[in-house]
Amino acid sequence: MTVGIVKQELWDERARAEAAASAPPARRRDGRQRLLEGALALLAERGYAAMELRDVALRGDAPRGSIYHHFPGGKSQLAAEAAALEGERVRAHIERSLAERGLRETLLLFGGIFRRRAADHPDRIGCPVAAAALARPEDPALAAAATAAFRSWEESIVTALRGEGVPARQAGPFAALVISTIEGALVRARAAGDHAPLDDAVAGLAQALDALLAGTRARRARRSA
Amino acid sequence: MTVGIVKQELWDERARAEAAASAPPARRRDGRQRLLEGALALLAERGYAAMELRDVALRGDAPRGSIYHHFPGGKSQLAAEAAALEGERVRAHIERSLAERGLRETLLLFGGIFRRRAADHPDRIGCPVAAAALARPEDPALAAAATAAFRSWEESIVTALRGEGVPARQAGPFAALVISTIEGALVRARAAGDHAPLDDAVAGLAQALDALLAGTRARRARRSA
Repeated sequence: MTVGIVKQELWDERARAEAAASAPPARRRDGRQRLLEGALALLAERGYAAMELRDVALRGDAPRGSIYHHFPGGKSQLAAEAAALEGERVRAHIERSLAERGLRETLLLFGGIFRRRAADHPDRIGCPVAAAALARPEDPALAAAATAAFRSWEESIVTALRGEGVPARQAGPFAALVISTIEGALVRARAAGDHAPLDDAVAGLAQALDALLAGTRARRARRSA
Repeated sequence: MTVGIVKQELWDERARAEAAASAPPARRRDGRQRLLEGALALLAERGYAAMELRDVALRGDAPRGSIYHHFPGGKSQLAAEAAALEGERVRAHIERSLAERGLRETLLLFGGIFRRRAADHPDRIGCPVAAAALARPEDPALAAAATAAFRSWEESIVTALRGEGVPARQAGPFAALVISTIEGALVRARAAGDHAPLDDAVAGLAQALDALLAGTRARRARRSA
C-alpha cells in the first residue's frame, strides 16, 4: 500500500532541499504539522484501526495533549487530513516529475524510490492513502479522502497521456491501471518484505506504456499516410 | 483487496453447482471447514488485526470452543490456513477459466463478478489474501502464505501468456501487472464503495493485453516475412 510513501519520499527529498535553501529549516514545522506527519507514518505502517493517538504524538514528536486542540474531531479528523495532505503531496510530485522527466521516466523513478525505501524498512512498506481507503464502511469521510487522492493522481496521468496523443478512451483506463498497479504492488511488497513485486509491477507498467504509445504512433502514421 | 473474493465467488458458484449434483449438499462441510470460511469472510471485510475469533465462529456457524481443537496455533494458524485455502481456490479458478475462456475473457469475467459482488456488499469488498499480506512484520508466516498465493496466480497467467506466444521476458511483468492491478483496484473499490475502480482497472488490463498481443503478432509477422 503506497504510492503514498514513495511519493512521500520524493516529497521529503524536495522538502529537504527547500529547507536547506531557507533558514531556519525543518524545526519550524508546527505542532499541527508534526501530528500530521506522525499520523502519515503510522497509517502507512499499521493501518487506521491500529493507529493509536499516543503513538502519533510520539512519532510526530508533539505533545499528546495538543491533538484535540489541533484536531477537535480526534483520530478520524487527523487521519482524514493526513490522507488529504498525502494526496496533495503525491499529486504535486507526480505533476513535477511528469513535467521534468515525462511519463515513462516517472514510472521508472517510482521503482527506484521503492527500492531504496524497501531497503531501509522492508517490513513497513505501506501507503497511508490505502490505509484510509480500507477505513470504509466505518469511516466514510476518511475513505472519501482516499478516493479523492486516487482520482487526483489519475487525472495528472490522464493529462500526460493526452499530451502524448493517447485518445481519451485509452488514457482513462491506462491511468487507472497505473494507480491500481502501484497500490496493489505495495500490498505485495509488504507481504514479501522486499521491493521485487514493485520492480515487477513497474516493469509491467513500462511495457504496457510502450505498447500503448506504439499503438498511438501506428494509428497516427496510418492516418497521415 | 480481493482478487480473493472475486474468485471466491467464482468458486462458490462452482461449489454450489457441484453440491447440487451430489447429495447431501453444503451442510456436509465439517466444523474445521466452516471456521476457515468464517475466517476468510472476516479477513476480507475487516483485516487480520480486527479478525476476532468469536466472530469467526459466529460467521462460520461453528462452536467457538472448537477453534483450538481444529487450530492449536489459534488465530495465526487459522488465518494462514485460510489464506492458503483461498490462494489454492483462486489458482484453480484462474486455471479453469483460462482453459475454458482464454486470457482476455478471464480478465473481463473478473470485472463482471466484481460488479455483482460490489452490488451486494459495496462496503465490504476485500481480499483475504491481501489482509494476510498486511500482517507483516507481526506475523511473517501469514504474510508468506499471501506471497505464495500471489505467486501461484501469477504463474498461471505466465503460462497462459506463453501459450499465446508472448516471450518470457514480457510474460512475467505482465502477469505481475495483472495481480497487482486487481489487488490495488480492490483497495480503491473499497474506498469508493463501488465497483467502478474495478471496471476501470479491468478495462486498462484488457487494453494492455491487446497491445501486448498485437506486438507479439507484429514481431512474428516480421520474422516470417
